[in-house]
Amino acid sequence: MATTKTGAPLDRGTLDTLLRRRLFYTPSFELYGGVSGLYDYGPPGCSLQANIVDTWRKHFVLEEDMLEVDCSMLTPHDVLRTSGHVDKFADWMCKDQKTGEIFRADHIIEEILDARLKGDKEARGERIMEEEGTDKKKRKRKVKDIKAIRLDDKVIQEYEGILAKIGDYNGEELGKLIVDHGITSPTTGNPLKPPVSFNLMFQTSIGPSANLPGYLRPETAQGQFLTFNKLYEFNNLRMPFASASIGKSFRNEISPRSGLLRVREFLMAEIEHFVDPLDKKHPRFPEIADKVSLKFLPRAIQELGKATIVETTIGEAVKEGMVDNETLGYFLARIQLFLKELGVDQEKVRFRQHMPNEMAHYAADCWDAELLTSYGWIECVGCADRSAYDLTVHSNKTGEQLVVRETLEPPKVWEEWDMDVDRKWLGPKFRRDAKKIEEAVARISQEDRERLAAAQKAGGKVFVEVESLGSVELEKVTITKSKKSVNVREYTPNVIEPSFGIGRIFYSLIEHIYWSRPGDEARGVLSFPPRIAPTKVLIVPLSGHSDFAPIVTALSAKIRRAGISNKVDNSSATIGKRYARNDELGTPFGVTVDFQSLKDGTITLRERDGMKQIRGAQDEVIEVVRRILDGDIAFDDALAKFGEFQGQELDE
Amino acid sequence: MATTKTGAPLDRGTLDTLLRRRLFYTPSFELYGGVSGLYDYGPPGCSLQANIVDTWRKHFVLEEDMLEVDCSMLTPHDVLRTSGHVDKFADWMCKDQKTGEIFRADHIIEEILDARLKGDKEARGERIMEEEGTDKKKRKRKVKDIKAIRLDDKVIQEYEGILAKIGDYNGEELGKLIVDHGITSPTTGNPLKPPVSFNLMFQTSIGPSANLPGYLRPETAQGQFLTFNKLYEFNNLRMPFASASIGKSFRNEISPRSGLLRVREFLMAEIEHFVDPLDKKHPRFPEIADKVSLKFLPRAIQELGKATIVETTIGEAVKEGMVDNETLGYFLARIQLFLKELGVDQEKVRFRQHMPNEMAHYAADCWDAELLTSYGWIECVGCADRSAYDLTVHSNKTGEQLVVRETLEPPKVWEEWDMDVDRKWLGPKFRRDAKKIEEAVARISQEDRERLAAAQKAGGKVFVEVESLGSVELEKVTITKSKKSVNVREYTPNVIEPSFGIGRIFYSLIEHIYWSRPGDEARGVLSFPPRIAPTKVLIVPLSGHSDFAPIVTALSAKIRRAGISNKVDNSSATIGKRYARNDELGTPFGVTVDFQSLKDGTITLRERDGMKQIRGAQDEVIEVVRRILDGDIAFDDALAKFGEFQGQELDE
Repeated sequence: MATTKTGAPLDRGTLDTLLRRRLFYTPSFELYGGVSGLYDYGPPGCSLQANIVDTWRKHFVLEEDMLEVDCSMLTPHDVLRTSGHVDKFADWMCKDQKTGEIFRADHIIEEILDARLKGDKEARGERIMEEEGTDKKKRKRKVKDIKAIRLDDKVIQEYEGILAKIGDYNGEELGKLIVDHGITSPTTGNPLKPPVSFNLMFQTSIGPSANLPGYLRPETAQGQFLTFNKLYEFNNLRMPFASASIGKSFRNEISPRSGLLRVREFLMAEIEHFVDPLDKKHPRFPEIADKVSLKFLPRAIQELGKATIVETTIGEAVKEGMVDNETLGYFLARIQLFLKELGVDQEKVRFRQHMPNEMAHYAADCWDAELLTSYGWIECVGCADRSAYDLTVHSNKTGEQLVVRETLEPPKVWEEWDMDVDRKWLGPKFRRDAKKIEEAVARISQEDRERLAAAQKAGGKVFVEVESLGSVELEKVTITKSKKSVNVREYTPNVIEPSFGIGRIFYSLIEHIYWSRPGDEARGVLSFPPRIAPTKVLIVPLSGHSDFAPIVTALSAKIRRAGISNKVDNSSATIGKRYARNDELGTPFGVTVDFQSLKDGTITLRERDGMKQIRGAQDEVIEVVRRILDGDIAFDDALAKFGEFQGQELDE
Repeated sequence: MATTKTGAPLDRGTLDTLLRRRLFYTPSFELYGGVSGLYDYGPPGCSLQANIVDTWRKHFVLEEDMLEVDCSMLTPHDVLRTSGHVDKFADWMCKDQKTGEIFRADHIIEEILDARLKGDKEARGERIMEEEGTDKKKRKRKVKDIKAIRLDDKVIQEYEGILAKIGDYNGEELGKLIVDHGITSPTTGNPLKPPVSFNLMFQTSIGPSANLPGYLRPETAQGQFLTFNKLYEFNNLRMPFASASIGKSFRNEISPRSGLLRVREFLMAEIEHFVDPLDKKHPRFPEIADKVSLKFLPRAIQELGKATIVETTIGEAVKEGMVDNETLGYFLARIQLFLKELGVDQEKVRFRQHMPNEMAHYAADCWDAELLTSYGWIECVGCADRSAYDLTVHSNKTGEQLVVRETLEPPKVWEEWDMDVDRKWLGPKFRRDAKKIEEAVARISQEDRERLAAAQKAGGKVFVEVESLGSVELEKVTITKSKKSVNVREYTPNVIEPSFGIGRIFYSLIEHIYWSRPGDEARGVLSFPPRIAPTKVLIVPLSGHSDFAPIVTALSAKIRRAGISNKVDNSSATIGKRYARNDELGTPFGVTVDFQSLKDGTITLRERDGMKQIRGAQDEVIEVVRRILDGDIAFDDALAKFGEFQGQELDE
């Protein structure tokens, strides 16, 4: 069961209402009836999103000196054809034969079989457990009515088998399941047409003619891959290096659900770390190897049908081979630290390795950072090893090399036996078979050549086996040993890709830091860390009297000049109500301007979570806030220094 | 003629090469042959763009407490049909009758007539002046060869007349011009088909069925309008207020050109300021009224065919009525201050009022902030009064009210004559004509009612004129005077919309701050103000010796922790070359780590533009940079304090 920050049961409905009321996000185009899978971020949501992105940029791009790029979203067909998205980025959908209503094939099978299993349990008088917090994600179900019908034990087993690998079936197999198990439209009961593939990219046409079909990008990655040569040169031809990009991507979901977790337009932050496939060490790995512990759910444990967590340092995980290499491990640890900085509950994070059947078509290995929410464990960050897949396919398609040329110092030097057959002898004698003989000679191994050289030196004859000719004597052949050297090594880099779904992190974070005060459950608090909070300071004048206006305006400007975002709430609501509103907005600090402020300029500073206050001169208070935001001190330090202020009776 | 920062002639080719070489931006999908009108921003471009956006957000959103939102780009057809974009957001295109090559109709007529006029001048032996820096924008022309053919004076006059109003013609008129003047394809000479309308929005389909056509938004504004009610409530029902949004918009240009100035996917920053149509005063107008002077090119002057600038304070401009109201004026002044902060050359900014025929379909008035570039005067910011257009059309279409309800204090009180016809008399007597009579009574004016009341009081009869019935006596009617009061005023707000094309500002700014050192023209310098520069500090170790690595790494981390972006250049290039590279990247400060640094930890700080250096301890130098970035001091202040350092002989 999902819980709030304080461990109480989380009521998603109440939280959803809060988020809509406070304009964190709302469905887009509501005036026009809305479009599922599209959301607008209101002022606090927009600011929270910007703070998450800003933290990401500092934590990754600046800290690691990554090369940030901003590439086009509109992408021509050929690029996404080459990347595999045109063929493989699809889901299976099926239609109601009469009404034409569209369902995602795997979802509808899953939901109906699931409903039948529940009906069976009901018929057997068993209690139906909610599956929140388990591996299976809870979803808004299309199947509303569960009929209590008892099933054969054999059928139950069969259904469970199907559900366990529902992600593995292709269209034909899904169609067979629909027929075999009598699955019909849950809304009308009509039969369903066989599943057809539906590509998840939004298609459009670039320019006035129809000659340039294009798509909205499904990921920011392709733009980064196509810019590889330029970035490599910009980086003074040094490896390894990473590019990064923050921007919207698009996915035309068949039936979006679960709020922000499955949407059609979403903000991503992606890193493409280009690395030598023979050397996936990371120079900064030692900095975190022993310091960062992660909760792992590796493939081997999932194969046993279990979800037991392995908690260990990233250093150990790489050493044991559970995580393949240092670069992948370094990023997993850095992802964990990033999530921690945002305020994500460390008990609600795990790193799950993908099963082979669930990986994207380009991935060689993949770990997901999953966050526990009321929808179950949600993939918020994917960290995939895309190997050399993308650079290779684009290079093959366009004929442009996308490689690293490494100067070998010292050059690689070795000795090799050459066999040189005299063509003036070979050609006239064997005519059209000459080529075949030359090819056979070229295939002779170094060991055999050495042996043949020794034999020739000893006066023996040299033979080669040629297909359909049998053993041919090479009457005129020179076998010599010579020095070879190469001073450039050429390779296609591998790519380690940490890919962040900002909207999913945004929502999961909110569930983690949401709570309500004991005895006041209807009133929510969003305890964002101060640096992440949408607005830092709420200024509350105690009275609506016009005497307060100048000091409030000046104070707001002063706080803003200190680089701290603030809002004035001079509405006529009670102080308590105004603070309650801002608890819901997650504003960490409240500043009260009261009658004393008019006399001596002092103000009170209230901390959101503990509701304790200090009082001081304006500059002192601003300095306290600034230092808390800089991470120098905590509010408790200020409390110790200034002493708790209790002089003011508020109407909370 | 376009000039550099130092007034030298600007060679656009050299600048373009620099911008590509340093990866400010490059054409997207170059590996696949490129797609015109799409560009990728490389690391310095991406960072510059982020700094412009950040400055914008501070200057407008934070400073003015605007409500920032982030709305969906995918927009359903109905919304853009209502807004007028489906019908009116289009250009005329025409096709080569044989090859199908597509041209924008107005552009092709313009270019061909222009070429003929040039050919005429050549035939007359006149010198052809380049028209840079004049009103007409210079474009990459499709017409390559200008034939020296003399034209009749009458024809010249006709051509000039057409060119002066080329933006005014509709498709039919453009088609007639093409026929009348024998305009053919400039590439093949083939005749052209009649112009057809081409909608400039990218179309797609949302969801798996074809039932929900949609577009990529052509502006961020519509999302803001549709959220009006929520934002108004979020703002505690206070007016005026502004929403703001930063995000990509799309425009499927027929033939993109002029680099970043006309692209298919672009970053916009838009403000929608909602204001009472009866009171367009702005509370902060007095702060800037006398302090900010602008260069205006009002409609009245353009109508005389002139481009004479009127330079005056914004206070005067509003007072004289040249600028319609305070809110519009306030934003024009704030736009000017914003551009100044970015480093835009104040001599190359003007505010031009739109002519009636060039305004968008929704605009009631519009002023553009135009920046002078090698392409001519470029519209970079539009500041339109959209009146109540958008809120009204969306409200009419959806039936949802998008209005402000203002409590009137004191309530509006007045007296009114009511006429109450007794229905028990009216119905039976007139039956189906009763309604017609009631309607006629309702239409009787207050003056007439007063007269009728007096007549009735005096014992006279009361008649009403009814269509097709003639004069009807109202036998049973009560005419009384009663008090009315209204305490709520309801109105649809007007919208003032400052709309910023970030890419156009980005490019124009670069032209303004680009220059080259005398005697070294091939070597460009981009003199971004420090706060806008992509990277703030370049760290240059004087030697590649491994002794330097620890101090360089530590210094870089220290500068980063101070919140200052920096790059290390430890390539083997000479110091001079490394600084030259960074002149091109616009990095304002260089820090040299030399052998002395290894001994005593001191470093030198070099300022990009003047190339002067100071030397000090690391913390001192970092503090100098931080204070310059904060705007507290200039480099010259540091120079005065530390003295110029000249001990180091560099190889520049």
